[in-house]
Amino acid sequence: MSEKRIEISQLGEFGLIDRINRQFTLKNESSLKGIGDDAAVIQASGDECMLVSTDMLVEGIHFDLSYVPIQHLGYKAVAVNVSDIAAMNGKAEQITVSIALSNRFSVEAVDALYQGIKTACENYNVDLVGGDTTSSAAGLVISITVLGRAPKSKIVYRKGAQVNDIICVTGDLGAAFMGLQVLEREKQVFMADPGMQPSLEKYEYMVGRQLKPEARTDIVFDLEEAGVKPTSMIDVSDGLVSELFHLSRHSEVGIRIYEDKVPIDHMTFETAVEFKLDPITCALNGGEDYELLFTIRQEDQEKIKKHPDIHMIGYVHDRKNERVMITKQGNTVPLRAQGWDHFTE
Amino acid sequence: MSEKRIEISQLGEFGLIDRINRQFTLKNESSLKGIGDDAAVIQASGDECMLVSTDMLVEGIHFDLSYVPIQHLGYKAVAVNVSDIAAMNGKAEQITVSIALSNRFSVEAVDALYQGIKTACENYNVDLVGGDTTSSAAGLVISITVLGRAPKSKIVYRKGAQVNDIICVTGDLGAAFMGLQVLEREKQVFMADPGMQPSLEKYEYMVGRQLKPEARTDIVFDLEEAGVKPTSMIDVSDGLVSELFHLSRHSEVGIRIYEDKVPIDHMTFETAVEFKLDPITCALNGGEDYELLFTIRQEDQEKIKKHPDIHMIGYVHDRKNERVMITKQGNTVPLRAQGWDHFTE
Repeated sequence: MSEKRIEISQLGEFGLIDRINRQFTLKNESSLKGIGDDAAVIQASGDECMLVSTDMLVEGIHFDLSYVPIQHLGYKAVAVNVSDIAAMNGKAEQITVSIALSNRFSVEAVDALYQGIKTACENYNVDLVGGDTTSSAAGLVISITVLGRAPKSKIVYRKGAQVNDIICVTGDLGAAFMGLQVLEREKQVFMADPGMQPSLEKYEYMVGRQLKPEARTDIVFDLEEAGVKPTSMIDVSDGLVSELFHLSRHSEVGIRIYEDKVPIDHMTFETAVEFKLDPITCALNGGEDYELLFTIRQEDQEKIKKHPDIHMIGYVHDRKNERVMITKQGNTVPLRAQGWDHFTE
Repeated sequence: MSEKRIEISQLGEFGLIDRINRQFTLKNESSLKGIGDDAAVIQASGDECMLVSTDMLVEGIHFDLSYVPIQHLGYKAVAVNVSDIAAMNGKAEQITVSIALSNRFSVEAVDALYQGIKTACENYNVDLVGGDTTSSAAGLVISITVLGRAPKSKIVYRKGAQVNDIICVTGDLGAAFMGLQVLEREKQVFMADPGMQPSLEKYEYMVGRQLKPEARTDIVFDLEEAGVKPTSMIDVSDGLVSELFHLSRHSEVGIRIYEDKVPIDHMTFETAVEFKLDPITCALNGGEDYELLFTIRQEDQEKIKKHPDIHMIGYVHDRKNERVMITKQGNTVPLRAQGWDHFTE
């Protein structure tokens, strides 16, 4: 390369994606939506659409097999893809799984990986329809593509949030991040003294959220049952604030959330304090929660306000550059995205 | 792992795929065909089907950037996926591209990779609709998933060849393999003396076939125009014999081909001799030709016999374990598959 070489870390992951995306335009009539949402949308015929999303997981970057059981890795790899289809208000139906692996891995390890994939396929009613297996010089790479389905009229994009819409998030936030902190700490303890057995009982909920997250396909079903179509939606993979920024940018609206409405599990809270971390920061920027973040019209509020796992955390306003949180003390502070970027970490 | 550890090399790639495949059954009505053909088939609605295929390319296993220009790698990665859709008698329309790359790669290298991907997308009328970019500890991994389309009634599988059908192959065979031999030799020469400029003019055709293969989407079009639907089809990625075995096994029929009908380009022939290789062995087992191998009914022979790029090389018979070649001397010899297996090489 010449002296003008630009490092990928200078652009970051989103910068690189933007740069790639700018070079491509969609030409086929069937390509309704390309890069830039949780999944691409392809018109199959008439109102029927297929949704496509893909994820690549690299050992040493996305997972550490020294504390991640490989069957959980298989499960998680499927769940996070199914979550992308749920975030479009669609139903996942098929996946392809490609793996590259070095000779460090035995057939038994591959069996365990696919056992996790199979369990996830069964839980989410998804069929494994294809894939590729190859060797690698070092480590494990998993690439999954998921295909989903939705009528065109039901699909929900990141764009679409309107002024005065209510911002909702499911479940609780920050637990997967705290689970990762616990696992990393136990790994250090174990490396210092391999005779030590990790004591994870107390942290079971958070560790489970990190190792075996679930896609919220139940919420897609519940919203349909309640007759609510969100105006915009995204899944929480990089952290709440990062996803709020996506909704804000795509919908060209501002965001206002309330600190005291952000759902945090009590064990997550306590563990954050134990780790000398601010619980709200963990919830806002933790990542890997795979909850659904969406906006609904004011008039739909009644229909879901009794749902035990949907939390209304704020609302949409018209000053598109104003993304703020009202603290418990009543102060207005700007939200700052600290999502994951594997190129610049 | 315990003492019972089984090495993946003991199973080989096909053994591993079979083992995985046995664990999974299709449950969604829309999953018409899963693992085991060039692409999976998903019913979109009514007669309209989507075709899905995926490939993973790993640096050091599938490509060597010391002699493969990275933009050609991008082109080839798309072309080989489009070829899988052509092998189902379908039309590719969308791809997703995921890459993992180390900090050895600059933004300019990524630009060049996507320039090749873009050129292929334009040539094949395919839209890039999604993907993932991430870092890797070492090397480049490319995972592409292609989506195609075909009416259910037009899809051609590996199964379906009938007794007395004529076996056809397009283009010529063995050139991509000889191109690889030339490139490997030049690499050795260059490593011994970096001042040496490689002289590749004479081998241009073969090197081009290796570095920048084309999917035979033109053949799918020509067959449609001629009113011929093949009874079975596959693309030649692992080598002619390996693919003949797939057609034979899936269709439960025997195969008889004629050595003097196997198409070999004259430069491929001469170069094989120069390399002290048997040209017919290169054509039978070379791999990476990405030509189409298919069977047609006897009554369709007239419709395509004047096609300059379709060669009738043999016929289908009823003794399913008999896959033979009639040599130029008139001897009958069993065909032996020597396809690629990255796990056992």
